[in-house]
Amino acid sequence: MTSISNYISQIESELRDTKFPKNPANLYDPLRYFFDLGGKRLRPALTLMTAENFGSKGKSALHAAMAIELFHNFSLIHDDIMDEAPFRRGKETVHTKWNNHIAILSGDVLFVKAFESLAKCEAKYLSDLLNLFNKTATEVCEGQQMDMDFETRETVTEDEYIEMIRLKTSVLLGCAIQFGAIVSELDSQFQKDLYDFGQYIGIAFQIKDDLLDLYGDPEKVGKQLGGDVICGKKTMLSIKAREYGCTTDQIHPVSSAESLVARAQEEFFKCGAKEYVEDRMVYYYKKALNCLSRLPSEQRKVFEDFSAYLIYRIH
Amino acid sequence: MTSISNYISQIESELRDTKFPKNPANLYDPLRYFFDLGGKRLRPALTLMTAENFGSKGKSALHAAMAIELFHNFSLIHDDIMDEAPFRRGKETVHTKWNNHIAILSGDVLFVKAFESLAKCEAKYLSDLLNLFNKTATEVCEGQQMDMDFETRETVTEDEYIEMIRLKTSVLLGCAIQFGAIVSELDSQFQKDLYDFGQYIGIAFQIKDDLLDLYGDPEKVGKQLGGDVICGKKTMLSIKAREYGCTTDQIHPVSSAESLVARAQEEFFKCGAKEYVEDRMVYYYKKALNCLSRLPSEQRKVFEDFSAYLIYRIH
Repeated sequence: MTSISNYISQIESELRDTKFPKNPANLYDPLRYFFDLGGKRLRPALTLMTAENFGSKGKSALHAAMAIELFHNFSLIHDDIMDEAPFRRGKETVHTKWNNHIAILSGDVLFVKAFESLAKCEAKYLSDLLNLFNKTATEVCEGQQMDMDFETRETVTEDEYIEMIRLKTSVLLGCAIQFGAIVSELDSQFQKDLYDFGQYIGIAFQIKDDLLDLYGDPEKVGKQLGGDVICGKKTMLSIKAREYGCTTDQIHPVSSAESLVARAQEEFFKCGAKEYVEDRMVYYYKKALNCLSRLPSEQRKVFEDFSAYLIYRIH
Repeated sequence: MTSISNYISQIESELRDTKFPKNPANLYDPLRYFFDLGGKRLRPALTLMTAENFGSKGKSALHAAMAIELFHNFSLIHDDIMDEAPFRRGKETVHTKWNNHIAILSGDVLFVKAFESLAKCEAKYLSDLLNLFNKTATEVCEGQQMDMDFETRETVTEDEYIEMIRLKTSVLLGCAIQFGAIVSELDSQFQKDLYDFGQYIGIAFQIKDDLLDLYGDPEKVGKQLGGDVICGKKTMLSIKAREYGCTTDQIHPVSSAESLVARAQEEFFKCGAKEYVEDRMVYYYKKALNCLSRLPSEQRKVFEDFSAYLIYRIH
């Protein structure tokens, strides 16, 4: 089996070969800047991994994978505006470095680039790919709207939170894997199994992100810990802690962001929220693995290894 | 020949049948609101007109036409944010009635709806339709960026202005007509002729819009005259007037917006800018008609009548 890092390298190489036009500079410079910031490239790697393991030939897998990555970056540029995030990966976000108007329009044109990449796939796959992509893109928007709606709500239930991250994050992983299945001409049952696997592993992946934000190794995670707590963002951890009677409101007032994070780490652990959330992560991880039961063992192993990589990662 | 108003009615009927999901309400309510504001629906009518006149059967023309209209409305919602426009068609814009974040995301999901409509077209046309749509959408973004860049520039040449409106406005008319040609299975020469016709008539159409903004009948145009002059927006009229040594700066200061508009009407007339711009409109109008020379006379007549309708309209 080709390792994940090889698929990621293929995507990085393709991104380097993607040349945006020179003009209008205010439209395309932000895209050059944003892709230079880097990224995990896990989603498109999933498409390539799936396609290779099911014997897809030709370039459709690469074009479909690129569509996923371009779309993902479009959504990040627009989400950063809506979240009023000043930084991404330690650098200024597009709307901070330029302005909101430029970030809106650069995002829009990047969205088109995603469809352009998809349109390069073999014609026989196009209708299936496009339908799944449209459904997924719609759901990602719905998830982002739910996330924004949560900001102004007093309480959010665990089920609502899971539905939000399913839409905002997980469906795109499902889509990425099913893209690989479509260009490998797998039957609809296998396609569904792989999509469901992607969706569940995506939920586990996001829960892992929530945990890393508070309990990760700051050196490995590459950013200050506890950003979610500092911003008062609702996550699986804070939702559960609140249910257990422990809120970040209670651990206020504190003298600094550092001590707020330290107390959240301690209180969320003591009340049992950390353990509960870790259990839920494993629950969705296992649900994902269950979706693989019909796969031939050789392919199943590839997805199992990838799942372990996602869930036991330290950044 | 079916009249333009019949094609427009078909689009209005299809829009009424387009049901957006109920939730998330903050994502879809703005779209319901925006389509209720109305619109000329000329672009999708062009697709239907072209398709009917070249014998297209089936529903592909309607789906392609709807993709054009959905895309156009997406671009209006985002443009209104970037232009900081408080009103459209006499009502609050989406970002005014809700907020910028909601307007960004509602626009995004509407963009997806455009691709969804396109994906309903017969599979044999899909690749051609998608390629043209992507090219057009990219150009519309480029045109909008040029328009924004012009705001902060001292001078803009006529050629630059024409290139900007070609990208921002005209290519979508070309695309709308070529969509009709694609689903009618016309050969590539006819497709190109019709696209070029659409592009030139689109430039004439935008120049007509510039003229109506200052010299229209306020009752017919449905809004206060001279909005472009009041906002200091660069248009064909102001660019030419400046070249002729007459600027709106010169006609400042005045006691009110009304007197500014009245003086611009008079000065732009006296310096010859109005006449020059009217001549250029007719120039592009004739260039458009020239693209029709290879068409059978019966079909040519349809496009000629439509052109006259666009150019001699009073609102």
